Amino acid sequence: MTDIFDLDTPAVLIDLDRVEANLKRVQDYADRHGLKLRPHIKTHKLPRFARRAMELGAVGITVQKLGEAEVFADAGISEIFLPYNIVGAAKLARLLALHGRVHITVTADSPETVEGLSRTFAESATSLTVLVECDTGMGRCGVQTSAAAVALAEKIVNSPGLRFGGLMTYPAAGQVEANAAWLTAAKLALSDAGLQADVVSNGGTPDLWRAHEVTAATEHRPGTYVYMDRFQVAKGVGSFDDCALTVLATVVSRPTEDRAIIDAGSKALTSDTLGMTGFGLIEAYPDAVIVGLSEEHGTIDLSACAAKPSIGDKLRIIPNHACVVSNLFDRVNLISGDRLVETVNVDARGRVD
Amino acid sequence: MTDIFDLDTPAVLIDLDRVEANLKRVQDYADRHGLKLRPHIKTHKLPRFARRAMELGAVGITVQKLGEAEVFADAGISEIFLPYNIVGAAKLARLLALHGRVHITVTADSPETVEGLSRTFAESATSLTVLVECDTGMGRCGVQTSAAAVALAEKIVNSPGLRFGGLMTYPAAGQVEANAAWLTAAKLALSDAGLQADVVSNGGTPDLWRAHEVTAATEHRPGTYVYMDRFQVAKGVGSFDDCALTVLATVVSRPTEDRAIIDAGSKALTSDTLGMTGFGLIEAYPDAVIVGLSEEHGTIDLSACAAKPSIGDKLRIIPNHACVVSNLFDRVNLISGDRLVETVNVDARGRVD
Repeated sequence: MTDIFDLDTPAVLIDLDRVEANLKRVQDYADRHGLKLRPHIKTHKLPRFARRAMELGAVGITVQKLGEAEVFADAGISEIFLPYNIVGAAKLARLLALHGRVHITVTADSPETVEGLSRTFAESATSLTVLVECDTGMGRCGVQTSAAAVALAEKIVNSPGLRFGGLMTYPAAGQVEANAAWLTAAKLALSDAGLQADVVSNGGTPDLWRAHEVTAATEHRPGTYVYMDRFQVAKGVGSFDDCALTVLATVVSRPTEDRAIIDAGSKALTSDTLGMTGFGLIEAYPDAVIVGLSEEHGTIDLSACAAKPSIGDKLRIIPNHACVVSNLFDRVNLISGDRLVETVNVDARGRVD
Repeated sequence: MTDIFDLDTPAVLIDLDRVEANLKRVQDYADRHGLKLRPHIKTHKLPRFARRAMELGAVGITVQKLGEAEVFADAGISEIFLPYNIVGAAKLARLLALHGRVHITVTADSPETVEGLSRTFAESATSLTVLVECDTGMGRCGVQTSAAAVALAEKIVNSPGLRFGGLMTYPAAGQVEANAAWLTAAKLALSDAGLQADVVSNGGTPDLWRAHEVTAATEHRPGTYVYMDRFQVAKGVGSFDDCALTVLATVVSRPTEDRAIIDAGSKALTSDTLGMTGFGLIEAYPDAVIVGLSEEHGTIDLSACAAKPSIGDKLRIIPNHACVVSNLFDRVNLISGDRLVETVNVDARGRVD
C-alpha cells in the first residue's frame, strides 16, 4: 500500500478512522437526546459518507445547492433537505424535476419565494414541503419575528402545491440561549395560530454539543463535524486528534533561516481565516505560523520553532476551514493511519448552482 | 442569442471586447518600451486567451503549476515559463516528460532544487533552462542577495543537463524602485563573475504601467491585466470599465430594509479581501457593500443605497480578485455586451499540482 508521504502535493488526505469516529460520536449524542440528525454534506461532498451517516441513524441529508442535491440523488440518497430560497425559472424547473424522483424539502423566508414555489408545484401530484427560515441571530436569511414566521406559514398553508413543514434556522455561533428562545417563541406563536411545526431544524457544528439545549428543535444539521478543522478546535468542539482532513504540502523553498515556502496556497487552503491568526496548523511544527498565502505559495514563519523543516519535506496541515478545501480539489485521498486506501473523486465539488 | 440576465446563477461572465482591449493595451505598452510580454495564464486558465495574446505579440506564456503547463501544452502552446521550484520525484518526472514536447523553462532559488533538476535532466538530449528566482522585496521565494544569485547561477552553469537562463522575480507591489535597484545590482554582479543573464523576468499587474522603469528587466509577466478586478482598480491600474470578469448573482432574500442576500458566497467570490472592505463591487448598486460571505450566501448592506434591489433581481459583481474566481467555476460564459456568445470549460481550473 502507498505511504501517504509518497503522494504528490498538494493533496487532501481524509482519515477514514477519524471520519467514522466523528460520525458515530455525534449520532450517539443525538440519539441520547432524542434529536434527529440530518447532516450537511457540504463539508465532504461525497455520497459514501452521507450513506454511512444514514446507516448510523441520520434521517436524511442537508445540501446547500440544487446541483449538490442532484449529485446525491443520482447516488441513491432519497431524503434531501435544501434549506435555501429557490428563486428563478431555471432553478424552479430543476427542483420540480428532482421532486419527481426523491423526497426533497426546501425553505422560504419571503412571500416572493413562496409564490414562485407555488406556481411551480400547483399542478404537481405530490405537494412540496416548505419550512420557514428564521433569522434567530445570524443576520443572514430568515424572517425577523415570530409574527412574520406565522404569516409566512399561513401563506404556505394557503398556497396550492405546498405543505407547511415547520421552522429552520442557521444560528449564530455562541448564541445558544437566544436561538432557543427565538424558536420556542415562534413555535408557540404558530400554535396560537392553530399551526403545527412538525420539524424545527437547527444547525451548525460550533455549538453542536449544546444542540439539546435548543428544546424546540426536533433535529440538527451539523456539517463540519465529519472532518473537524482548526476553527472547530478553537471553538472547543473537538481536539486536533479528531481532525480527519489534512492538506499534504511540500516545502519548496527555505529562503531565510526563519522562512519556509510550501506548495499549498489559497488554491489549496483558501484564504478563510475565520478570525484566527494564520492559515492552518502544521502538525509536525505546531509553533510554525502560516502567515501568508498567495495562490500557489504558502509562507511560513519558523521563528518560534526549535527544529525547522528542509526543502522536500512534506507537511500535514489542518486547515482553518475544511468545507472550503473540499471544494478546491477534484480528488481526495482516503487514508488509514499513514497508508492510502483509495483516491476518489469529490462528486459534488464545484456545484455552484 | 441568449441575454446574459437569462443565465442561471451564480455564473461567471467574461466580456470578450474588454479582454481584447486589455490584451492589446498592454501589448502596445510593452512594444513601445521594448519589453517582451510573457502573460500569466493563472487569471483566465483558458488556452484561447493565451493564443490570442501570442498572436498580438507575447513571446510565450507563464504558468504556476505543472498541471497548468500540461493543459496548455495539450492545447498547442509550446513556449511555457514555469517560475517555480520543482521539487520531488513525481513532479521532476512530469517536467522531464513535458520538456520532451514543448520548450519549458523553470526557476530555482536553492542548491537543493538545482540538484534535483540536474539529476533529472543530466541524461536529457536538450538541456533545461533554469533562471534564478530573486526575492527583491516580496518576502516569498527567492535568493536574498546578489552574491547568492551569482553563487546559484554558477551552480546551474556547472550542473549537467542545465543551462543558466537569467533572473526572475515576483516583486512586492508599490516597490518599483527597490525592485529595479535589486535587479540592476544582481545583473552587474553576474557580469562581474563572467555570467550573462539573457532573461531578466519581472512580473505583476499592480505596477504594470511602471514596468519600463525596471530597466534591467527584459520581459514582464502580468496576469490579472486580462480581466482586471476591484483590487487592480483600487491600485489605479485601470477603471471599472476595463473589468472583463463579473459574477452574475441573484437576490434570494431581502430579510430587512437594509439587507439583501445573494446566491454568491465564498464558493463564487472567494474570501480574498486583499486588504479592502467588502467582497466585490455591485455594478448597478455601487453604494451597496458586500459585508459578509458564507459558502453559498453573500450578505449585502444596502443602508447607503437610495434604490434597492428586489428578490429575483440579478446583479453583476466585479470581484476583489479575478484569478481566484476563475479557479472556482468549471465553466464560464463568454459575452459581448449583454449577449452570451459561448459557454466554455475552464480547461486549467483546479490544476493543484
